[in-house]
Amino acid sequence: MASYAGGPKLNHQWRLVSRPHGRVQESDFEWTEASVPDIAEGQILVRILYLSLDPTNRIWMEPIDSYLPMLPLGAIMRGITLGVIEVSRNSGYASGDSVLGLGGWQEYYVGDVSGWTKLPRIPGLPLTAFLGAVGHIGFTAYFGLLDIGQPRPGETLVISAAAGAVGSVAGQIGKIAGCRVVGIAGSDDKCQWITGDLGFDVAINYKKENVQDALKRACPDGIDIDFENVGGDILDAVLERINIGARVVVSGLISRYNAAGPVAGPSNFGQILVKRARVQGFIVRDFSSRYPEAATQIVQWLQEGKLKYRIDMADGLCNAPIALNKLFDGANTGKLLVRVSEEPV
Amino acid sequence: MASYAGGPKLNHQWRLVSRPHGRVQESDFEWTEASVPDIAEGQILVRILYLSLDPTNRIWMEPIDSYLPMLPLGAIMRGITLGVIEVSRNSGYASGDSVLGLGGWQEYYVGDVSGWTKLPRIPGLPLTAFLGAVGHIGFTAYFGLLDIGQPRPGETLVISAAAGAVGSVAGQIGKIAGCRVVGIAGSDDKCQWITGDLGFDVAINYKKENVQDALKRACPDGIDIDFENVGGDILDAVLERINIGARVVVSGLISRYNAAGPVAGPSNFGQILVKRARVQGFIVRDFSSRYPEAATQIVQWLQEGKLKYRIDMADGLCNAPIALNKLFDGANTGKLLVRVSEEPV
Repeated sequence: MASYAGGPKLNHQWRLVSRPHGRVQESDFEWTEASVPDIAEGQILVRILYLSLDPTNRIWMEPIDSYLPMLPLGAIMRGITLGVIEVSRNSGYASGDSVLGLGGWQEYYVGDVSGWTKLPRIPGLPLTAFLGAVGHIGFTAYFGLLDIGQPRPGETLVISAAAGAVGSVAGQIGKIAGCRVVGIAGSDDKCQWITGDLGFDVAINYKKENVQDALKRACPDGIDIDFENVGGDILDAVLERINIGARVVVSGLISRYNAAGPVAGPSNFGQILVKRARVQGFIVRDFSSRYPEAATQIVQWLQEGKLKYRIDMADGLCNAPIALNKLFDGANTGKLLVRVSEEPV
Repeated sequence: MASYAGGPKLNHQWRLVSRPHGRVQESDFEWTEASVPDIAEGQILVRILYLSLDPTNRIWMEPIDSYLPMLPLGAIMRGITLGVIEVSRNSGYASGDSVLGLGGWQEYYVGDVSGWTKLPRIPGLPLTAFLGAVGHIGFTAYFGLLDIGQPRPGETLVISAAAGAVGSVAGQIGKIAGCRVVGIAGSDDKCQWITGDLGFDVAINYKKENVQDALKRACPDGIDIDFENVGGDILDAVLERINIGARVVVSGLISRYNAAGPVAGPSNFGQILVKRARVQGFIVRDFSSRYPEAATQIVQWLQEGKLKYRIDMADGLCNAPIALNKLFDGANTGKLLVRVSEEPV
């Protein structure tokens, strides 16, 4: 067993102690403290730098097996994390390596290396990019739009939660693919960001405008692709205007995640039939064998200035439960992260 | 102009005079009478033998352009018909030819030949087969299941309205493709027919059984393909049990067609995301270039005894409006037709 210079380290953790009904409450978690255990042969000790907060975290809190097994009550809350290896007893990893994995809502991860990826150092690219455009966020946008959405130049693409982490990248990839891109977001600032900085053709502020009317104006030739992050009324308004052969990329349905009971599906479901639409869900993990392809392409777009992203940083692991709700309040712009500890200099 | 031996013929017609709210009423139609007009150069006169009644007829009555243009009030009700040419002034068609086309709810069609197909004579195959297994019904089942559903041997296929025209054929093609086939139907007689005569593995009587529970028993390994003809609660029960990568073939949504207002979509819509399902609508007309392929295959299956179908015949064009409601009441088994006039001997 390896032990530490300076004695045992303290590890703070957020544990899921009750299943939220509806909105997440801080009381659904318990803040616990434990010593970092010794590191067994084959294991690594990761000091977590950043915790990614994602809408799908809410799904992980439900008492169901989803695309990941159900998280038991009392367990450390599951989360995608980026950290630096402080101690390695695994020959594939070295102290100082930057790594990405499901480290959970805690300050230190100790365990085996399965699911942990070593991150390359790319000049000019901050580490946080690997939790954003060059990570699961960017890959979700990339595979969702290109593989599921199959955009063709000149088509009209609508994106909900367009100023969110995934939506903002998906819209820019849509522009690269030659689409007319219409984003739906929840504030004038967000709308200004996606049209002014990111190059979306039109932005609709769903809190101020009637989305049906706005889509009518913004999509005079109908909608060919919907990159759906929200569901609910917004999806219904989009379905009303889809063209024959439309693709609805179901990347997320954030409007449903906090529901305490059954939620009605889109009342324009019949449009799927009449317009011969394809509505297809996906999980980015299904494309993991192609992450290198996406990463290479996205880094190139970043370097060429064709793709931009924004990090929305919360400070301190202790604030994670509160920060998580920003996603459901539409209070974040870009990728929401929690800074758990400082990057090594 | 051609005229007729024996003087002008009378033509009875059902015209759509009001848009139904909900269920179709006989008063939504008007029974009119007119002389068959003279036949211009290039036109044909078709004596209609059979009128096909299909759930999609209800969509055609709505004040919307669907996959066909809106039918104006006062027009002859649109319908797929099979008839025999009595007079042809078109060199491609001869008197005595059997033809299929959108002849409408009337006794005689006079007009141009666009959209009219000449039917071959196939030994042992009754003419009505061309409105059933060897027509739009069989083709819907064939392309819907094979192209959209992409069944693999050993997969579990669920079919709603399984004793209906399309469902009963789709289930048998599912068996040919090597699937475990579970049909949902609305009476014990229908259930007996699809399991006893058509070879479905299991039948669920949704009027007697809780569909969720029954699907749990009938699909212990989950559901890989749903051939959906109904929508509503039945679709929701199916979505609850779909497997990762499931395909939902949206062939029809008959539960919605009579709705007088918005209908909620499936509340298990979120399953599309979590299970990475593909929900895809289609219209058989999109596959028209491949009808010969389907016809050849289906005729072969019929001749080999691998495929069976049943015709549910109503007599007399005057009964068409009443007969149409059988589709929405689940009162038909197999393909619903109206005999408009007697086949030539």
